[in-house]
Amino acid sequence: MSVEQKSVDAIRILSTEAIQRAKSGHPGICLGAAPIAYEVYAKHLNFSFRNPKWDNRDRFVLSAGHGSAMLYTLLHLFGYDVTKEDLINFRQLGSRTPGHPEYGKTAGVETSTGPLGQGLANAVGFAVAEAHLAALFNRPEYPVVDHYTYVLTGDGCLEEGIGYEACSFAGTQKLGKLILLYDCNDVTIEGNMKNTFSEDVATRFLAQGWQVLRVNDANNLYTLNNALERAKAETERPTVIICKSVIGYGSPLAGSADSHGAPIGEENLAATKENLNWECEPFEVPDEVRQHCLAIAEERSKKENEWNEMFDRYERAYPDLAEQYKTFMSGMQPDWEKVKAELPAFDKPEATRSCGGKILNAIAKVMPNIMSGSADLAPSCKTEILGQEYFSPEHREGCNIHFGIREHAMAAICNGIQLHGGLKAVCSTFFSFTDYMKGSIRMTALMNIPVLYVMTHDSIGVGEDGPTHQPMEQLISLRSIPNINVYRPCDGGETMAAFKCAFTDSCPSVIVETRQNLPAYEHAEQDAERGAYVLSDCNGKPDVLLIGTGSEIEVCMNAKNLLARDGIKAKVVSMVSIEKFEQQDEEYRDGVIDRDVKARVCVEAASHYSWYRYSRDFGEVVAMRGFGVSGPAKQLFEYFGFTAENVANAAKRSIENVKLNRFSH
Amino acid sequence: MSVEQKSVDAIRILSTEAIQRAKSGHPGICLGAAPIAYEVYAKHLNFSFRNPKWDNRDRFVLSAGHGSAMLYTLLHLFGYDVTKEDLINFRQLGSRTPGHPEYGKTAGVETSTGPLGQGLANAVGFAVAEAHLAALFNRPEYPVVDHYTYVLTGDGCLEEGIGYEACSFAGTQKLGKLILLYDCNDVTIEGNMKNTFSEDVATRFLAQGWQVLRVNDANNLYTLNNALERAKAETERPTVIICKSVIGYGSPLAGSADSHGAPIGEENLAATKENLNWECEPFEVPDEVRQHCLAIAEERSKKENEWNEMFDRYERAYPDLAEQYKTFMSGMQPDWEKVKAELPAFDKPEATRSCGGKILNAIAKVMPNIMSGSADLAPSCKTEILGQEYFSPEHREGCNIHFGIREHAMAAICNGIQLHGGLKAVCSTFFSFTDYMKGSIRMTALMNIPVLYVMTHDSIGVGEDGPTHQPMEQLISLRSIPNINVYRPCDGGETMAAFKCAFTDSCPSVIVETRQNLPAYEHAEQDAERGAYVLSDCNGKPDVLLIGTGSEIEVCMNAKNLLARDGIKAKVVSMVSIEKFEQQDEEYRDGVIDRDVKARVCVEAASHYSWYRYSRDFGEVVAMRGFGVSGPAKQLFEYFGFTAENVANAAKRSIENVKLNRFSH
Repeated sequence: MSVEQKSVDAIRILSTEAIQRAKSGHPGICLGAAPIAYEVYAKHLNFSFRNPKWDNRDRFVLSAGHGSAMLYTLLHLFGYDVTKEDLINFRQLGSRTPGHPEYGKTAGVETSTGPLGQGLANAVGFAVAEAHLAALFNRPEYPVVDHYTYVLTGDGCLEEGIGYEACSFAGTQKLGKLILLYDCNDVTIEGNMKNTFSEDVATRFLAQGWQVLRVNDANNLYTLNNALERAKAETERPTVIICKSVIGYGSPLAGSADSHGAPIGEENLAATKENLNWECEPFEVPDEVRQHCLAIAEERSKKENEWNEMFDRYERAYPDLAEQYKTFMSGMQPDWEKVKAELPAFDKPEATRSCGGKILNAIAKVMPNIMSGSADLAPSCKTEILGQEYFSPEHREGCNIHFGIREHAMAAICNGIQLHGGLKAVCSTFFSFTDYMKGSIRMTALMNIPVLYVMTHDSIGVGEDGPTHQPMEQLISLRSIPNINVYRPCDGGETMAAFKCAFTDSCPSVIVETRQNLPAYEHAEQDAERGAYVLSDCNGKPDVLLIGTGSEIEVCMNAKNLLARDGIKAKVVSMVSIEKFEQQDEEYRDGVIDRDVKARVCVEAASHYSWYRYSRDFGEVVAMRGFGVSGPAKQLFEYFGFTAENVANAAKRSIENVKLNRFSH
Repeated sequence: MSVEQKSVDAIRILSTEAIQRAKSGHPGICLGAAPIAYEVYAKHLNFSFRNPKWDNRDRFVLSAGHGSAMLYTLLHLFGYDVTKEDLINFRQLGSRTPGHPEYGKTAGVETSTGPLGQGLANAVGFAVAEAHLAALFNRPEYPVVDHYTYVLTGDGCLEEGIGYEACSFAGTQKLGKLILLYDCNDVTIEGNMKNTFSEDVATRFLAQGWQVLRVNDANNLYTLNNALERAKAETERPTVIICKSVIGYGSPLAGSADSHGAPIGEENLAATKENLNWECEPFEVPDEVRQHCLAIAEERSKKENEWNEMFDRYERAYPDLAEQYKTFMSGMQPDWEKVKAELPAFDKPEATRSCGGKILNAIAKVMPNIMSGSADLAPSCKTEILGQEYFSPEHREGCNIHFGIREHAMAAICNGIQLHGGLKAVCSTFFSFTDYMKGSIRMTALMNIPVLYVMTHDSIGVGEDGPTHQPMEQLISLRSIPNINVYRPCDGGETMAAFKCAFTDSCPSVIVETRQNLPAYEHAEQDAERGAYVLSDCNGKPDVLLIGTGSEIEVCMNAKNLLARDGIKAKVVSMVSIEKFEQQDEEYRDGVIDRDVKARVCVEAASHYSWYRYSRDFGEVVAMRGFGVSGPAKQLFEYFGFTAENVANAAKRSIENVKLNRFSH
């Protein structure tokens, strides 16, 4: 048996052993797709195992993330910092080998995958970033950015809508250095794939502008290699290689859905070893295999040395460009003084989406490594970088992106762009359509990477388009995702603070903006950056706190004036970002929201669920409790009670609640 | 000019006038696609304007919901209860003609549309329901259920992932009576469609198993009619008719994205009228057009009379079947005594997903109008109706559905099945993947229709699969959607209560179930149906309330015992469904959660945001504040503090908080 075949079998056996030991995992794909993954790593992937973050490495994405054990075994064999112990600890609490690949936990894992289709769209993002950076930095004889992106999927990723969206985008964009390996085993959890997915996948990809190649037997390394060579040679179109494989190959469960999602059992594992003539102890690798794989890894890492030498020459030939490249790759920060110099004063009524557009453009002038796209709503969301091209096959230097009407893929592609390194990804759509991209936003949060989401048309303020387009529960839906900072600014100044945080923090941010004009308020610049602050204080101890966000700040300010007429002192707190506020120290928080002022009104034209932690026992929550309706926006604010009168009355009720020791809800 | 052409122009002009008057709306599609919609209504659609809910009507879905004005004008012309006043009140607060079509607000509107791709997937659901009911009820010479489903989309619906998913499913299922009219105008909001969507749509649909027809000029009614005839003649495959149209046709903005999303302006409207030789007063229709359309409507409504006569004969020939048909269509309710007779006692430790599977199967035995499907996870979610076929081209009678790995389309197809009438739609996947279907679940909620979502693998209890597969913020995300009742039962008895409510209530329900075994508790049957109840009381006034859900009830019960050792009296409240509980009267609610017991602990292995309204000023919230991790489930519950010890300590802290008048958060 060739050492190559033995290496493939090593991947099969070690991953199946890890799954068996964990009593949990997905052996089917590990046994079936091992030769595909092996061939990529052994013959094609440029990587540097000692420096897994080498800028110009080829990216490999296991979109079928349930095959994690296979990926960990590959990384183990090819010299990455994934030890035998790590494989033994597969899926254990605190291990570096979690159930699905997790970005940041394991050397060589490029992105977190598991929810199907995400990794595929991330890979498209890697390819976008590569093409864009190549256009900006490469010069004749200096291919500084020049790598392929490989992605391995099962049929799951291709059945998911996000998969079609991502591939349609990739085809339109002619991302020639993207190579999709489709592990086609004709089996799904519910049985025969044809029951659910009878599509002609080859024709589908042709329709989407891809090169389509077939490998009729995934165990044939020679034809796999040929296909990969042809894929790399085709630079005008992305390539899909449809690899016919057998799920659970080598085991008694081969070809059966039973091999998919549970360990195959000790007996079947023993039989598999016998079938594959495997004689090693558990988690042991034959010396021959180990040497073979490490020799490949050593050989391949010379690519990094060559690249380093080339970059030295590049630095001498193009010192400014090389400097800029390094600035891009180190994670740029805008010079805020320069940004402000580009901006008008925000002292007139204006929609926060309009303010946001100006701010983003001012930032882009001093920070050229932004890529900003929209799901066909750039004119409404104001996220186009003016005067710059749109990224396209003809304009790879373009930093704007037409994502098309593909919200889900948009967010996942942005995850890929951000993960690639060198770029800051920004994307936008209507806030209501957050729902379409929730699956990908969650991945942004889980990976904790600083993608910026600009979501406009933020409430019933949308008006006539009606309840489908009026967000309601979207704010709480995002606030409840860990790691993300959500901002709902009330004016241009707060919008500026939100952008500043979003470009400074290392976590994801969502800035939620209005369609309609809002008044401008006076407030100190840093205050809003702390998440919440006293926008309008009163003389002495307040009788009541009015806490609001965004467009409802105006309502709170007017309510304060109404209350003053009745001799009631109200203090208005603008809660730009609950997350940011909760990160402040207790002293600051107590200074903004007085613990001992129990009369409170929280006001937000969105789900009430965000507010009980601040309204407390005696406070009132003026919020939405049902869907919006179609009608002119101004009428809707009245209809749903977002008026100064209603808030002032709520304040009086809350004051009364405190007096009577009466719970408010 | 022919009366047909004048009728088409009437649709164009009246809808543009309505938009102009509302100062809001989307004229582009109304002007461009008017002939397509006209041809369907005038020559093909079987409808009965006096009885828009006639069972056997053809369904027409405007998936491009932003063309609402066009739909309202069509309904107006063809005799439905949509008046001139309604058109004048387009997009006004309280009108019957909201910004996007809303189910239940307007006669003849089959489903709410707006978010792109939803209507297309609903249409697939209509076609599934038709095929299934036809298989159950039709007999030779008695085509009781026999109608087409027409759906009109722009490119938006086809760019969205849900659109591909739905069409892939429709192709696999060979839904021959589904006809998609693709209004292809090559323009999107950001400009030329080719920038974002260069796909060969015809080839794509061929790959998905559809018949593909083309109409090169959407203004040619003759070729449109021919295409529709051919579409109806093809019963083995769904048909897409690619209709080349001109956005904003007839106006000076024709062909431009500027005509898409805003009124064209008075001047352009005047020019459009001139271009189309239109001479009527605003919102007036030429007599000739009115008579022509009403004559068609009258003629067409004879179809209902014919159907009624046929059904009379059917009733005589097949009295039992006819009776069952009527039972189906009137919205069946299971006989709960019979259901219970089918069920084992739930008195041993069992996963609620397993209980749910048994309950659903017991219900299905007495209520045969369920269609139950899963996104390739039926074996895990336990939602297969055992002993029944899967719906397929060969087994239209099958009540199980292989939805494939297409969560978003699954939910929207279920919306269509439910809206069709005659069936109860149930679907399932892992709770974490709620995120992929949020867009469609929101539509279920907005339409307030009783689709049942069974979501399993509900928390960190998922274990080794890790944070991508461990829901966290999904509970609050669903609870914050209006109209939906969310249930998280703690054992088989509560699961039964949840199913009973889900099959009784007219609103949507989500039942969230565990992967892992949970103990069985004793509790009265009706209690859980009220949303929350006292699972375990104490002697006299409690010192502390322990409020939990699902798997954390066990933790609360153990904590109660621990506290008892320290002489602390705890009362355990099981909050199966917050929504259901909040619907109870104040007396009941106060009986369950004592107002004056301020020491409280709320326990749920999910986002803390659900609980501040119950924990109040002095209570503690034991919940998740970040993502889960990969590891064995039992270890994770300990790791994240869901232990009796931790809850007991929280209880003591809360008691102390009350004493010291110290806020807990």
